[in-house]
Formats: sequence, structure tokens, C-alpha cells
Amino acid sequence: MAANLDKPRDTTNKVGSNVTLINAMKIPGLNTLGISIVRIDYAPLGENSPHTHPHATEILTVLEGALYVGFVTSNPENKLFTKKLEKGDVFVFPVGLIHFQFNPCPNKPAVAIAALSSQNPSTITIANAVFGSKPPISDDVLAKAFQVEKNTVKWLQAQFWADNQN
Amino acid sequence: MAANLDKPRDTTNKVGSNVTLINAMKIPGLNTLGISIVRIDYAPLGENSPHTHPHATEILTVLEGALYVGFVTSNPENKLFTKKLEKGDVFVFPVGLIHFQFNPCPNKPAVAIAALSSQNPSTITIANAVFGSKPPISDDVLAKAFQVEKNTVKWLQAQFWADNQN
Amino acid sequence: MAANLDKPRDTTNKVGSNVTLINAMKIPGLNTLGISIVRIDYAPLGENSPHTHPHATEILTVLEGALYVGFVTSNPENKLFTKKLEKGDVFVFPVGLIHFQFNPCPNKPAVAIAALSSQNPSTITIANAVFGSKPPISDDVLAKAFQVEKNTVKWLQAQFWADNQN
Amino acid sequence: MAANLDKPRDTTNKVGSNVTLINAMKIPGLNTLGISIVRIDYAPLGENSPHTHPHATEILTVLEGALYVGFVTSNPENKLFTKKLEKGDVFVFPVGLIHFQFNPCPNKPAVAIAALSSQNPSTITIANAVFGSKPPISDDVLAKAFQVEKNTVKWLQAQFWADNQN
Amino acid sequence: MAANLDKPRDTTNKVGSNVTLINAMKIPGLNTLGISIVRIDYAPLGENSPHTHPHATEILTVLEGALYVGFVTSNPENKLFTKKLEKGDVFVFPVGLIHFQFNPCPNKPAVAIAALSSQNPSTITIANAVFGSKPPISDDVLAKAFQVEKNTVKWLQAQFWADNQN
Amino acid sequence: MAANLDKPRDTTNKVGSNVTLINAMKIPGLNTLGISIVRIDYAPLGENSPHTHPHATEILTVLEGALYVGFVTSNPENKLFTKKLEKGDVFVFPVGLIHFQFNPCPNKPAVAIAALSSQNPSTITIANAVFGSKPPISDDVLAKAFQVEKNTVKWLQAQFWADNQN
Repeated sequence: MAANLDKPRDTTNKVGSNVTLINAMKIPGLNTLGISIVRIDYAPLGENSPHTHPHATEILTVLEGALYVGFVTSNPENKLFTKKLEKGDVFVFPVGLIHFQFNPCPNKPAVAIAALSSQNPSTITIANAVFGSKPPISDDVLAKAFQVEKNTVKWLQAQFWADNQN
Repeated sequence: MAANLDKPRDTTNKVGSNVTLINAMKIPGLNTLGISIVRIDYAPLGENSPHTHPHATEILTVLEGALYVGFVTSNPENKLFTKKLEKGDVFVFPVGLIHFQFNPCPNKPAVAIAALSSQNPSTITIANAVFGSKPPISDDVLAKAFQVEKNTVKWLQAQFWADNQN
Repeated sequence: MAANLDKPRDTTNKVGSNVTLINAMKIPGLNTLGISIVRIDYAPLGENSPHTHPHATEILTVLEGALYVGFVTSNPENKLFTKKLEKGDVFVFPVGLIHFQFNPCPNKPAVAIAALSSQNPSTITIANAVFGSKPPISDDVLAKAFQVEKNTVKWLQAQFWADNQN
Repeated sequence: MAANLDKPRDTTNKVGSNVTLINAMKIPGLNTLGISIVRIDYAPLGENSPHTHPHATEILTVLEGALYVGFVTSNPENKLFTKKLEKGDVFVFPVGLIHFQFNPCPNKPAVAIAALSSQNPSTITIANAVFGSKPPISDDVLAKAFQVEKNTVKWLQAQFWADNQN
Repeated sequence: MAANLDKPRDTTNKVGSNVTLINAMKIPGLNTLGISIVRIDYAPLGENSPHTHPHATEILTVLEGALYVGFVTSNPENKLFTKKLEKGDVFVFPVGLIHFQFNPCPNKPAVAIAALSSQNPSTITIANAVFGSKPPISDDVLAKAFQVEKNTVKWLQAQFWADNQN
Repeated sequence: MAANLDKPRDTTNKVGSNVTLINAMKIPGLNTLGISIVRIDYAPLGENSPHTHPHATEILTVLEGALYVGFVTSNPENKLFTKKLEKGDVFVFPVGLIHFQFNPCPNKPAVAIAALSSQNPSTITIANAVFGSKPPISDDVLAKAFQVEKNTVKWLQAQFWADNQN
């Protein structure tokens, strides 16, 4: 398939990244086969912000630039594991855990290739699901959950929650 | 097992709820059997704040009081499904999706019994994992992810992120 | 879903119990999610007689009254595990094993909530499947299996094998 | 492995059959491989009495003689499917359902080879588990379940429940 | 099902064997049940040549004659396990590994019954897939893979690759 | 992990390729997570010769150069699917099927990144398993399977079957 995974993508959005996923909707033959591949472009200081894949583990290698990556374990520890990855390094994000990648370099883009253990790995971007759901979650619920004023919740919900997934 | 699931629990914490999980660590015979049970107590206006179970679907019924419950689908829709549940009603939270329960009543506690399709259903409370991880996630990452000032991130990270899980 | 799991059910049948199952046929969204929930009402001295769930483990908690419960392991041990459960206690019936619940109290009903690790947990009530099948199993087979006269088999097959499942 | 599956077995027991199972306890290499094989010998009018395999489907072919075989579906239908099998015929017993094989011929033994979709397919012989468990199930439970007098239950429990499994 | 597994099959083909598979296409009820059964006839010096079942383990017992059987483990060991099987012996071929059965007797046929842990166990006969594919694999690829001249590859590809599967 | 997946590998062996696999033996945290990643280097006219992964599907993208790739379906079709891949293209090799990659360019190396749906995807290189097993498969078996003289079998078995796996 002519996936053009060698071509840089446009990263001019709020989070400064672009995720190009080749899944079973793009290659129907992938159905039931349990794998997909993805190219991620990061602008300088861009990030693939905290998200989870409910049904897939992800393995990632850096093609260009460098990445600061991490994931957080479940309750009650909520331990953060992080690593600074250079070109050629490999990192694994276990299924279901919240994780992120950040390009720490202020003047150079970064590129990664990753694979996911599902032919249709859905993604839940935390900020989008919590503050950008349609319709919005009640501000009673969110104010108490995040220990903030309702005005802060409303301000967060008023942001335009861009999607960096393609 | 004398689980005392009939006994009210203490809900005097920041979110006003208390989760009593009977899993394979409490009944070793549950190992490999793929199920666990939980009692949840909600103070008036208390909530079980947004969280996910990476490996388990949850089915819940209300024993006392009423609950406003909901879950959000994955990207790009991030659609919120909600329902007001009365005593005896049943609701399902699909595996991996962010969901919550809130007691909308200002003067009456609520109680639910729920079951999860795993003998060890781990829980990721979103606020705790994102703003309460040990060590904290870099404020560069969170400020961009949630489109807020770094000061707001620091304020959030300074909260005491209570655990309502037992 | 308005499942009315808080409402007592009619237990006036031969075994004195009533099973109200909320499965994928009642909540289509349960499909593939691997869980269901059930309310069981027991008349005084009523029972949910010996049965198996070929595809599901069951976890049960007592809401009202008390229950004498048990399950039998497979050949060659056929070991019986039993327990007297009070309100709030929890018990597990492993997938595929023959098990039962009995209300030992002569003057008080009992109620349990249970969950099963399948969205469509089928049930095989032993007496009904063995002596109440349509058409009946040959009395040659049953007389030898249970070491009884053919007349006894015929008498058993002539019973009205009530179904306590809803 | 020298399993001697070509050798007739002794069928002089109460049910007139003998089951020789080659599972992971006999071939450790079978572990995790999900299959096992069995030879069953039937005396004239002998039977492999009603039983279930909680974790395995069974496929059977007749090597010698003939067999009357059947299985019963789950509640509420409890439908009996039967077939008279001749040498070379094939039949399938779906996972978890109660099934049996009976040699209808008064003067000729029968032999079958069967395979099961588990390396350790446990077997629950209904009569043994219900009336021969150790310790016995309460006669209150069994009398109500099978709609018989307690004396009948006691008589059944007093039988010697032979095991035809090897 | 009248599978006629007791009847000898015609083994007059290049490899001298005949495989009669009873799978879900012949018994639709087998679907999802994860098992199938097969009769294999071997001419004197006939063989079921090296092949793999990508989704199924196979367990085999010899009904008539004798068999020399084996399988090869994966890289880097490529260890060959073999055994001479007599009537009544049992052998297991683990899922995905290349294996074969050969009748070493120059004047007597052999017969085996085997079961596979899938209701639709596909088979890849190595010689047919490598040298008999339609269209053929490039001789550049095969000459280098097998370290032979291109002429040898062409000669191999010119053979008539008979199928012994029914 | 410092996997150095950005560094070219030595391809001076008989097949002209080098496979660098990052699996659970190199990252213990991969255990149970069901994914691994691999870099493959191809010399000009080098190949990753026909092989199978019994437990894993593979998804591959070309980083440098071009590749002629293919896989063969199971019996009885043995249909060959091939594709010429350029930089950035993606291709999928379904679990268990025989497949290969060949660098058709006489003067330029090629590089691919691939991911496999198992944390420990074993590999069976056909030529090595069939002609390089230890001890060798009987030449009776192989001569008949491949329709060649025993001398040809012996010549093939005398080759040094290099391993290109790291």
C-alpha cells in the first residue's frame, strides 16, 4: 500500500504533532490480524499529548530527532516512567496506560514509527475526552474531579480541542 | 468470604465516594476466572470521578439513591453517553472508556453494586494519573496538552490527589 | 436500563426461586463485553437448584437473608465446597462447575445479586436437562447412569420441570 | 508415546465403559497446545453416562460397533439431539453441554476414538457430582431439585459411584 | 455425520497418501468449536510430506501399520524430533511447526486418525507453497533461498504438485 | 532501550540480509504485551528468504531502497501475492503464511522496519528447517516430498544454512 510513511506531515496545530495511522480501515486485509503501524511527526516542542489505547500495546522507535516519552501506571501508585529517546531507540507503552511523547528540541522536528497490537487501535486523548466531549461532561463532575472552580472547567471546555489523528 | 458488602463505607474524602473492590488479591480463588465485584458508596453530591479500567467492562446497578452516570467514546467523536439511574436500574461501561458516576442528590447518599469482567481490574483515575503521578509529568507536556498556563498545571499538581479505592 | 433489580420477584414455583438475568438480549450494547448481572429471589427454603454455566464464572453477594451455597469439582474428586453466607458476604462459582444456592431459613426470603463473566451466560439446570429434555433421554441410558429402575426414571421424567429463569 | 490406544480396555464396571484419556498429564508437551485424544470402550449395552466437559468440545468417530449418542441444549429449551452412529461416522459434542454415548447392541462391544479441544479437559459425570460428591450435597437441596423424597436421595447417595475414567 | 472414516482412501498419487478432513465446511455445527478430525491413509512408503497448520496443533494415533513421524523447531535451533510409531501410539505436532508422517513399510499401508485444535485448520504443504505457487515465486528468490542454480528451481517448479488433501 | 535501530547491519552472508529483532528477551517488559519490532537490512539483491512466523502477523514499511515482497496462501490454492514496495509503502504478511522480501536493486541496499503481533515471534526459515535441521530429515521423506533424487537432497543438506536472525 502506498502509505507514504516516508513523507513529513503538517504539524501546525495546537499540540504540534501529526499521527498517521495505517489500520484496518485503510488496509481491509488487516482485519483480525491484530497489528497496525503509524508514523508520528512532531514539530519542535510539539507533543502527542497524554492518551490511551484501550485495546493495544504500542512499540515505538525514533527515526529523526529525539523524544521525551512516558507512561503512568494505574491506581494507587500512578508511577510515571519516562525516558529520553535518541534516534534508533525503542520504547514500549503497555496496553491501556496513559502515555505521551514530547519533542524537547526547540529547533528540530522529530519523527517516530510505531506499531500497535490491534488492527483498529482506538485512541482516547485525555484532554479531548474529558474537556472536549460532545455534549460536555457536567461541570459539577469535572470541578470536583480536578479540584478546580467551575469557571476553570468552563474555560477548559471552551478551548478548541484539535485532533492530531489522521 | 466475609466481604461486608452490606456495610456503608466512609465517604469523607475530596471526591465524596468510596470503592470497595473484591478482587483476586482478596479471594485468591478468583485467579484466571475473569470477574470481580465492587460496592461503591457516594456521599450527597459525591462522585466516582472520571477513570478507566484498561482490562474490564463494568456493569452497575443502583442499590440506594440515584446516580448520574456517563462514559465518553474514543477519538475522533468523543461522544458522551449519560443516564440518570434510579434504584434497580442497570448501566454498562465498556472496557477502556473514560466513565464516571455522580450522586446528584444534595441530601442523600447513594450505593451501587458493580461487577467487572476481570479478576484484577486495574483502575486509572484520570486526575490522579495526569496531575498526581509520582514523579509529576513535565509541565511543558501538560500545559500544551490542556492548553493552560504552566502556573495552572503547577496548581493542579499541588493538590492532594486522594484515592477512593479500597 | 430500567431493570427493576430492586423489586422482589414471584418465587411461587416448585423450587422456590426466581432468577432475573440482565444479559445481551436485554441490553444489546453488552455484546462482546463479557459480563452480565442477575438478581435472584429465594422463598423460605427455596433454592436455585444444581446447575452449570458452561461459559461463565459467577460472583455473588447476599443482599437480604442468608444462603447455603456450594459447588462440586470435576472427576475424579467430585469434592463439594460449601459455605453459609450472610448478608454482605461474597462467593465465587468457577466456570462450568455444578453449583447451587439454598435459603436455609424457613420463614424469611433471601435475595442475592450476582454477576457472570459472559454477556450471554447460558444455564444448564441439571434436573431439567437430564430428566426434562425434549424429547426425553432414553430410559436405558438414565437407568444405568443413575443406578435406578426404569420406573423411577419414568416417574422423574413425568414431573413438571419448572423453569425459574427470566 | 506408547499409549496403547489399539488395546481393548476392561469394561466390567457399573456403567459398562472405560475412558482412556491421553492428556497433558500423560504427555507434558501437550501443555498450552489445546488438544487431547481419548479411546472409549463400551461393553454390550454399556454407556459413557451423561457428563460435561466444562472447557472442551469433543469430536468422536466410531471404530467398532455402533453407538446411540446425544446431547442436551441449555435452558430453557433443553432440547435433546441424538443420533445412531455406525462405524466411521463422526459426531460433535459442543463445549459444556451434557452428553452421553450408549452401546445399543446387546451382544457386541463398541469402540470410539475422540478428541477434545483442551490439553486437560476436565469431566463432570452428572450422577457422580450430584449424588456422589464428597461430602454429599444436603438432601434438602437434592430432594427439592429432583422432586423426590429424601429417602430416594439417600438411596441414590448410598450407591457406589464408579469412575470409568483412566 | 456419515464421514466414512472407516473406509480406506485412494493413495495413488505422487506422495502416496490421502488426507480426509472433517472440518466446519463439512459439519457447519463445528463453527467456533475449535476442533476437527481427520483420517490419513498411507501407501507403502507413502508420506504426508512436510507441512504446517498455521492455526492448529495436531494429535495423532496410528490405527494400522507403522509411521515414522517428526517435526522441526523454529530458528535458530531447527531441531528435528522424530519417532517410530506403532499401532496405538500417540504423537503431537505443535501448532505452526513443520512436520511430516512417513510409512516406512515397503509392503503394507498405514492408517492414522488425527485431531486438530481448530474447526478449520488450514494446511501449508511446503513443497507446494514454495515450488508450486500460482504464479510461481521469482527464481531469483528461490535460487538464493535454497542455494541452488536457477535451472534447479525451474525444474522443481515444473513438477506437478499434487494435492493429497480432501 | 538503546536498540540502535538506526544503524546499518552487516549483510555479508549467503542470503544477503540481516534481521535485528527487539523482542521480550531484549525488553523483558514486553512479556504478555503481544508486540515486537524489527529492523531488516538487505544487501543489493539480498533477501529475507521464505519463512513463517507461526504466532505473529507482520506489518512492514520500507525506510530505504525498494523491496519485492510476497506471501503464499494455504492449500489447495497456494496463491502467491506479491508487490513492489517503494520507500514509505506498507505491506502485511498474515500470521503463519510463508513470505519473503527481496531487494531487486543490484547496486543499492534496502532497509525496512517491521512489527510483529507477538512479544516472542518465532521464525521458521523454510530452507533451514527442511534441509538444515539437526539431525537431518530422512532423505526418503525429502526426496519424495520435493520430487528430487536423493543425491539432490544430500547436496542440499550439505549446504551451510546460515542464520540471518539477530
